[in-house]
Amino acid sequence: MSNTDTIVESIEWRDDHVRILDQTYLPNREVYSDIRDVGRMWEAIKKLRVRGAPAIGIAAAYGFYLGIKELPENAFESFWVEVERVADYLETARPTAVNLHWALERLKTTIQAHKDKDISEIKDIVLETAKTIHAEDKRTCKKIGENGVELVPKEARILTHCNTGSLATGQYGTALSVIFHAHEEGNKLQVWVDETRPLLQGSRLTSWELMNAEIPMKLITDSTAGSLIRRGEVDMVIVGADRVASNGDTANKIGTYPLAVLANENDVPFYVAVPLSTIDIELENGEDIPIEERDGDEIASFNDSKVAPKKVETYNPAFDVTPHRYVTAFITEEGIIKPDFDENFKALFED
Amino acid sequence: MSNTDTIVESIEWRDDHVRILDQTYLPNREVYSDIRDVGRMWEAIKKLRVRGAPAIGIAAAYGFYLGIKELPENAFESFWVEVERVADYLETARPTAVNLHWALERLKTTIQAHKDKDISEIKDIVLETAKTIHAEDKRTCKKIGENGVELVPKEARILTHCNTGSLATGQYGTALSVIFHAHEEGNKLQVWVDETRPLLQGSRLTSWELMNAEIPMKLITDSTAGSLIRRGEVDMVIVGADRVASNGDTANKIGTYPLAVLANENDVPFYVAVPLSTIDIELENGEDIPIEERDGDEIASFNDSKVAPKKVETYNPAFDVTPHRYVTAFITEEGIIKPDFDENFKALFED
Repeated sequence: MSNTDTIVESIEWRDDHVRILDQTYLPNREVYSDIRDVGRMWEAIKKLRVRGAPAIGIAAAYGFYLGIKELPENAFESFWVEVERVADYLETARPTAVNLHWALERLKTTIQAHKDKDISEIKDIVLETAKTIHAEDKRTCKKIGENGVELVPKEARILTHCNTGSLATGQYGTALSVIFHAHEEGNKLQVWVDETRPLLQGSRLTSWELMNAEIPMKLITDSTAGSLIRRGEVDMVIVGADRVASNGDTANKIGTYPLAVLANENDVPFYVAVPLSTIDIELENGEDIPIEERDGDEIASFNDSKVAPKKVETYNPAFDVTPHRYVTAFITEEGIIKPDFDENFKALFED
Repeated sequence: MSNTDTIVESIEWRDDHVRILDQTYLPNREVYSDIRDVGRMWEAIKKLRVRGAPAIGIAAAYGFYLGIKELPENAFESFWVEVERVADYLETARPTAVNLHWALERLKTTIQAHKDKDISEIKDIVLETAKTIHAEDKRTCKKIGENGVELVPKEARILTHCNTGSLATGQYGTALSVIFHAHEEGNKLQVWVDETRPLLQGSRLTSWELMNAEIPMKLITDSTAGSLIRRGEVDMVIVGADRVASNGDTANKIGTYPLAVLANENDVPFYVAVPLSTIDIELENGEDIPIEERDGDEIASFNDSKVAPKKVETYNPAFDVTPHRYVTAFITEEGIIKPDFDENFKALFED
């Protein structure tokens, strides 16, 4: 049995509801939650019980189905009004990840394509499409991992940020999928894991996934990455992304841009592993990507205890934008995409 | 009354013992501890109850006196053996900050200069010298602040890292002294405070000092600094240092090097505010500065609760080294020092 086969699934459809591995309890407890309505799914996405751009897309697809399956409307027009309301509601949970938007658009397009069918039949098609999105994501993540292996030296010290593994996707992950697959191919890896403040997805989730897969790793604070890169202790940086503009500008977890600059400054390759669904081909550049600003208490408190003075002012953006010139290449299910990204993305999307 | 007059003192000599403001309890509680022996002072320095390169120097000087004042030896030779033992012991508390070493060397030199006096008289001279080191540091920090003001625009958004204020020095601080004095001069400031993982000196201490002084500030995670700098929301970066080599290479709190690279990449000036006692003129470059590695539990736990899987491996260096080419200028009690640092430091030390 290969390591990648043992990898957890963070989202599962069970007959009439979704079961998620609630990531806010990791690594101390593995708590699974059954989600039976769209309000609970909105809350789960908002509170990062389920997180990671691809996983949010999958969760939103199932959540959307939960939101429409009990709708009483029989006429398409009135049903459609409610469909749009449910989709708009889910979109407000997290603004930056394009996969959420992408999944909902796909479901709405599917509904429109079947508008002449019975509403109950349309609902079944929506559920099937959500399952398809989920299954496709697993295949996509596997391909990303397989495609990325060629970039990984036989002995490699890899630095990664946030969590981009099975927990963030249908399975395998994006950046972590490359690491899982390189490990499976026999590469000798050492992974530097950024803890990823403020919510510690690196400490809590990436450490957990890598330790489960028995891949050697060391946890560091986010600001330790710089001196490791400078001292030649990092052979490559791989991260995921929440939204990539058509020119390659990349929105990802706050702290990604500094890593890209530090890698560039020290001639270390900087890779972004993403499914094509994360590329927002309509978007000219990264300046237009909406950046979610989260509650300052995520910085000022820890486990409900204050770590800063009362009434401290904060600024807590969840993402930053890395200009495309710092990205060595994108690793996608369709292969490695090198600059000029604008041209090469367009060629892919025109296929 | 100016703002700078109200600034706290973190170390105070009281007749026969030292009173410190125990920084591990801030900002939630202001706990003062009376330290009456060298072992307690070693523990206070090691555990960061007192911290900041200049404050460590002062604390070590008083701690050294506490360590020698009860020595029974009457002959200088046997007294000197114990003196060296006490100094060596204190030096092990924190290896990176040169001020600790500097203060102990100064006291040892003083003792040697008075070797013909009675031991009890020598002990009194040591205490007076410790008080002098303390008083000099306050004057030095005030000068650093006054000298730095000329670099601060009338309206300035300043980013700083770790804590370099009154808590880190005899009074006023280094980088924060510049901020306090610019504020007092009427500059309109907005300070971005890096929380400074893993021990959150920024959240806990710098926020507390700036809020006490009513200087507008916002707390951010360390990895948020990059995107603020890129987006033109930072006019200058000012940090302190724990040891500066003769070529200007600068050891400071982990995370300083990334800030320097990010400032450089975006044409934002990067200043290091230090007393001359932090400059280790004997040291050719930063590669030889010993970097303290601290307990990994500082990253893997928070308030005694685990935030990473059990048995996670960690790497937790307390400092990094910023190559001199990223430093715009040093702000010292003798004025602003611009490149070539090697030449300009030597000129200063030869005076």
